[in-house]
Amino acid sequence: MSKGTVVLAYSGGLDTSCILVWLKEQGYDVIAFLANIGQSEDFDAARKKAENLGAKKVFIDDLRAEFVTDFIWPAVQANAIYEDRYLLGTSIARPCIARRQVEIARREGAQFVSHGATGKGNDQIRFELTCYALYPEVKVISPWRIPEFYNSFKGRKDLMEYAEKHGIPVPVTPKAPWSMDANLMHIRMFFCVFQTHAPGDLYLMTKNPEDSPSTSDVLEIQFKNGVPVKVTNMTDGHSKDSALDIFSYLNEIGGKHGVGRIDIVENRFIGMKSRGIYETPGGTILLKAHLDIETFTMDKEVRRIKQGLGVRISELIYNGFWYSPEGEYLRHCIAKSQENVEGKVQLSVFKGQVYILGRESPKSLYNEELVSSTLPHVHQSACC
Amino acid sequence: MSKGTVVLAYSGGLDTSCILVWLKEQGYDVIAFLANIGQSEDFDAARKKAENLGAKKVFIDDLRAEFVTDFIWPAVQANAIYEDRYLLGTSIARPCIARRQVEIARREGAQFVSHGATGKGNDQIRFELTCYALYPEVKVISPWRIPEFYNSFKGRKDLMEYAEKHGIPVPVTPKAPWSMDANLMHIRMFFCVFQTHAPGDLYLMTKNPEDSPSTSDVLEIQFKNGVPVKVTNMTDGHSKDSALDIFSYLNEIGGKHGVGRIDIVENRFIGMKSRGIYETPGGTILLKAHLDIETFTMDKEVRRIKQGLGVRISELIYNGFWYSPEGEYLRHCIAKSQENVEGKVQLSVFKGQVYILGRESPKSLYNEELVSSTLPHVHQSACC
Amino acid sequence: MSKGTVVLAYSGGLDTSCILVWLKEQGYDVIAFLANIGQSEDFDAARKKAENLGAKKVFIDDLRAEFVTDFIWPAVQANAIYEDRYLLGTSIARPCIARRQVEIARREGAQFVSHGATGKGNDQIRFELTCYALYPEVKVISPWRIPEFYNSFKGRKDLMEYAEKHGIPVPVTPKAPWSMDANLMHIRMFFCVFQTHAPGDLYLMTKNPEDSPSTSDVLEIQFKNGVPVKVTNMTDGHSKDSALDIFSYLNEIGGKHGVGRIDIVENRFIGMKSRGIYETPGGTILLKAHLDIETFTMDKEVRRIKQGLGVRISELIYNGFWYSPEGEYLRHCIAKSQENVEGKVQLSVFKGQVYILGRESPKSLYNEELVSSTLPHVHQSACC
Amino acid sequence: MSKGTVVLAYSGGLDTSCILVWLKEQGYDVIAFLANIGQSEDFDAARKKAENLGAKKVFIDDLRAEFVTDFIWPAVQANAIYEDRYLLGTSIARPCIARRQVEIARREGAQFVSHGATGKGNDQIRFELTCYALYPEVKVISPWRIPEFYNSFKGRKDLMEYAEKHGIPVPVTPKAPWSMDANLMHIRMFFCVFQTHAPGDLYLMTKNPEDSPSTSDVLEIQFKNGVPVKVTNMTDGHSKDSALDIFSYLNEIGGKHGVGRIDIVENRFIGMKSRGIYETPGGTILLKAHLDIETFTMDKEVRRIKQGLGVRISELIYNGFWYSPEGEYLRHCIAKSQENVEGKVQLSVFKGQVYILGRESPKSLYNEELVSSTLPHVHQSACC
Repeated sequence: MSKGTVVLAYSGGLDTSCILVWLKEQGYDVIAFLANIGQSEDFDAARKKAENLGAKKVFIDDLRAEFVTDFIWPAVQANAIYEDRYLLGTSIARPCIARRQVEIARREGAQFVSHGATGKGNDQIRFELTCYALYPEVKVISPWRIPEFYNSFKGRKDLMEYAEKHGIPVPVTPKAPWSMDANLMHIRMFFCVFQTHAPGDLYLMTKNPEDSPSTSDVLEIQFKNGVPVKVTNMTDGHSKDSALDIFSYLNEIGGKHGVGRIDIVENRFIGMKSRGIYETPGGTILLKAHLDIETFTMDKEVRRIKQGLGVRISELIYNGFWYSPEGEYLRHCIAKSQENVEGKVQLSVFKGQVYILGRESPKSLYNEELVSSTLPHVHQSACC
Repeated sequence: MSKGTVVLAYSGGLDTSCILVWLKEQGYDVIAFLANIGQSEDFDAARKKAENLGAKKVFIDDLRAEFVTDFIWPAVQANAIYEDRYLLGTSIARPCIARRQVEIARREGAQFVSHGATGKGNDQIRFELTCYALYPEVKVISPWRIPEFYNSFKGRKDLMEYAEKHGIPVPVTPKAPWSMDANLMHIRMFFCVFQTHAPGDLYLMTKNPEDSPSTSDVLEIQFKNGVPVKVTNMTDGHSKDSALDIFSYLNEIGGKHGVGRIDIVENRFIGMKSRGIYETPGGTILLKAHLDIETFTMDKEVRRIKQGLGVRISELIYNGFWYSPEGEYLRHCIAKSQENVEGKVQLSVFKGQVYILGRESPKSLYNEELVSSTLPHVHQSACC
Repeated sequence: MSKGTVVLAYSGGLDTSCILVWLKEQGYDVIAFLANIGQSEDFDAARKKAENLGAKKVFIDDLRAEFVTDFIWPAVQANAIYEDRYLLGTSIARPCIARRQVEIARREGAQFVSHGATGKGNDQIRFELTCYALYPEVKVISPWRIPEFYNSFKGRKDLMEYAEKHGIPVPVTPKAPWSMDANLMHIRMFFCVFQTHAPGDLYLMTKNPEDSPSTSDVLEIQFKNGVPVKVTNMTDGHSKDSALDIFSYLNEIGGKHGVGRIDIVENRFIGMKSRGIYETPGGTILLKAHLDIETFTMDKEVRRIKQGLGVRISELIYNGFWYSPEGEYLRHCIAKSQENVEGKVQLSVFKGQVYILGRESPKSLYNEELVSSTLPHVHQSACC
Repeated sequence: MSKGTVVLAYSGGLDTSCILVWLKEQGYDVIAFLANIGQSEDFDAARKKAENLGAKKVFIDDLRAEFVTDFIWPAVQANAIYEDRYLLGTSIARPCIARRQVEIARREGAQFVSHGATGKGNDQIRFELTCYALYPEVKVISPWRIPEFYNSFKGRKDLMEYAEKHGIPVPVTPKAPWSMDANLMHIRMFFCVFQTHAPGDLYLMTKNPEDSPSTSDVLEIQFKNGVPVKVTNMTDGHSKDSALDIFSYLNEIGGKHGVGRIDIVENRFIGMKSRGIYETPGGTILLKAHLDIETFTMDKEVRRIKQGLGVRISELIYNGFWYSPEGEYLRHCIAKSQENVEGKVQLSVFKGQVYILGRESPKSLYNEELVSSTLPHVHQSACC
């Protein structure tokens, strides 16, 4: 008799394939769920593989548009950035995926959800906090924290042997010495060492600036309520005006010019330091453009307060608390601050860098009259 | 009979030359003081000009080394940045200049100091707050806030006529449509318009990235107590190890590769928004390198607290409160946080961008043992 | 010919009576405006006096109800407290008065407003910032900052002589060695000395705790959206349910038991320290009750964020920025946090102190299930 | 053969007596450690009991003086207060006790420490974080989180039976419906219900204000570096000048007048809300006195920064991070801010309340000269 139904966050790779089979061995019915959030993947092959491994059902859902509007856009409004450098591309993807996963679990009457995140990092926490916040009665099965599981799979070799034994296709290429996470917003690679320089051919979303075009692209990004509503390439006249198209296009232009590569050490939620190499082409362009239009249109003191809230929500997002009372509260307050963040920013993208060229807005704020009249003896001549 | 002695912050330009003569007309003895903080200037010519205009004494002091160690270094430790973008190159120069100016005033028994900052911006405030903090009894004469003065000089034409009448050499080139400030750390240009793109030939410290070399320079910067103590060019083996040499070399390399150009709108202390275009080549390299070594070596929670203090001191510095009880207090707390910020950062500089390549430190912090033992059921596998 | 019309914030006292006459001498038409915000005053006599002194019109408006709902209630929601002790009773009254004053100025077509606040404190700033925020075109006449005025009135003696000369009734009692401000929320007295103990008969709103009843009153305060909607005296069954009645009743009970006396040194906006003695009976009861229901019903992390916003708005209010973009923004965010702050608090009031006895709420938050399931190995036994 | 030596934090009560015996049963040698931090206890009887139960050694250490100087004093400097009301009397006692416990463990060569804190609250966390911070190699045995233990002791009845069986003296009085913690700083009682009023005879450190003297005591507290160095009773001339004597005397006077009773709901570290009733007589007097002398002597802007650091360290202390890099850092920064906090505060204590009467200091700060000269047109008249 079945122990119940599990919705498994399935990636198509070795680990979650083994988990799928292992869960079945433990007596669960398994629904495989694969979210398309912009990663490069053969979704049809992944579906067939899951079916072959005995998944009761397979859901492959395209979440790209909602990932942009419900997660990337609020991050843009917040200028969300962790420890001054990381744009949180993985952190905001987890709640997006988990939200759909618990929707499926509720709809399919599954009492369990499961995932393949290891017990070492933030992803397990982000995943589980979302599940419990949105579906408090659900039970999470975290194989990499269950002794019976992790004691059986002490290394990749154990996984390979298990896969061969259970008819799970085994990858032919050796595992890279880093772990990777990819989505529409970024590609992240984690490394064990802090000092060795990253190999040049590591990057997938961005061209090496040394090989990128020697002519810039000039873009105009139009904002309303602090989020982009249109992007126009001033060079060739192309324009996009849906959220997904805008973000994809910024990725394309940013990637073409090698924008958004960083190599950082970050402090994880639970004490550890890790080295991450990130490519965030579109997100980097948007951060710079949004900073510009925001400073142009927002009252100085409101911005100071909002800046503090942005630092705070960045920590929350990183630590997995997107869905939490404080996360909701901060998003509300930040969105409120964006009501007048409206206008156009022109910028050029060239050789890994974004240069703001100018900006205009119907909402640019001036309060110098107030100030000069209250401080009447401060002579206010023209700005130049 | 003399009304007393004024130490005038004299730049050699039209405005402060007119002020020098005007102060003499008002009955003061004038000591001209010109600080060399790295701006490009013919100091000998400026000295002769001041003498010819009737300065009782002329002091031209090279403050470059103390500007680096006493002002730029603390800003580096703080990751000082105003409104997420401006590195405060002008804001930290004012207290450096004014500190020397009041030293001269005390030494020479002058009861007055004067300056040519207009009544429109932050510089007058920064200047005056420093003077009063370090020499509370001094009187500041601010011609651009004195009706007798500013009513006589309503435009540049009035200044030119006054200059001609009083034998003050008149510049032959027309005034640019922006105001400029230059020092070792940066060049700043203020514009009246927000939208028009800046002309390409505006920049003086940095090469246009389009014309910059197509080969990168790879540097290794060594830090101790959060400030650089050595820079080595890994490409050619050059190295520098005094503060002024290090910073000048970073300017040279950054300038060569077009690093540190920004075009921003900022919120001034007294309510106004202004558009500034900045070039900060060495400062930009250092900010990135310092962020990297700091995150690598500092405890996560200490860094969060310190990050908040850094935001706060950046606002203070911008608003002119370098010398203030809260400024001193914050610098103390920030310096304390830097005690373990030690190690080497390798980076490449190319086409306007700085890429961190790796880092090492004898002080890198790990507290995962503590964490994994207090949370015994969180399985901590290797980082990859 | 008239220079125009001035709406003068008139108190009925010596200073503003002299200012009324002086403004007329300067050629203005004067409208006297006296706000009833709960101070003890003979309003009819004040009206007649103003008319006799030549006021073109006299407006005496009862602002008590809007003072409670629009100013005291938001302060309660924020737990507004300056420097850990002062409940801001004067700071929130200024924008309330000035708001009505500029309404009158607009309605009556007056181009000017004037007030009697001296040039030494925060009140002038609070007053003027409100006027400019709500009526940017208005001109403020601040006699105590106009040399022609303050040079003529160097001491109280000058005012008395001017009054006698111009038929202004002169107070027969000598001026107290402190300055006083009274309204529905509190009475404030400023002193020049920091050390001398305040005389026992100084207080007007509160009984000396030594002489207060030896039996407590037990109250139940019901909150909704973070503001009181009903107060019931559990001892005698009395209850009140309109905002003004609730607050007045809390003042009565608090005053009867000597609640809310403090003697503090505070840091004024512009650098000075001053000693204030305050009586805030109802406000003190409400702060304690609100803290209790808020902590009981609000998520812990939301409360931490909101606590920071409360500190910030307290500084803003103190410094005169009630009407400012950041003030509006903070009030919005704080009000948002209060949506679930609902329930009843029981407390006893006795001998200068408020003791919370218990609380209940339909909205009390528990998230321990979430926590205990995410941290499965932390055994959660019952609370005792 | 012994599994090794455990130093057990032993209270003399039923729980830790059972744990002592249980640890022996498990094969450990047990050293009983009982810290005297001011609780009311028959220490000799506790020693004999531990010896009878088979403790290898018994240490009963008087930590009261170091509790005051090393833990209470830094809390006073910080104005440490959790969620606006709780003075952290338990939170600061845990690291004090655990510090000595690991000292004993190191000295006696014990590899283990153990404690009787349940798995429900903050105390276990505070205890264990301290142990790991100060003695990273130690192993903590937490019986209330070990299934073999907690499954055997599901209620008090199980403990009683176990005690009888093993010759552990059994308390004759029934357990109160609350849990209690007592030390020199406070007595805390936790309740399961939020609404019921606390019985009048619950309190142990403080007299009921209704029965307290009808004459006040007037004290003068002298501070240096933000901590009290002398207290004088102005009524009878008594004075104390050692840390422990000062604090004990403030407890005596505060207790006599019923000062420091609060009934609050607090948010625990791990999600839960709990109701605590506290008595903190001396701590409450000191908080008020310190706030007064601090505001009097500290620069306004430094105080704003320090206030934020104080909020932060209060959260850290509550959550158990006294010994942590960020805790050390904050204590350093806060201590730095106290260098000028020096002077005398006079106050009266009466019927549950503390009234500040006056203050004096050699270090009171005035910077109005600076301000008035930089803002020359703001007329600064005398304070009244």
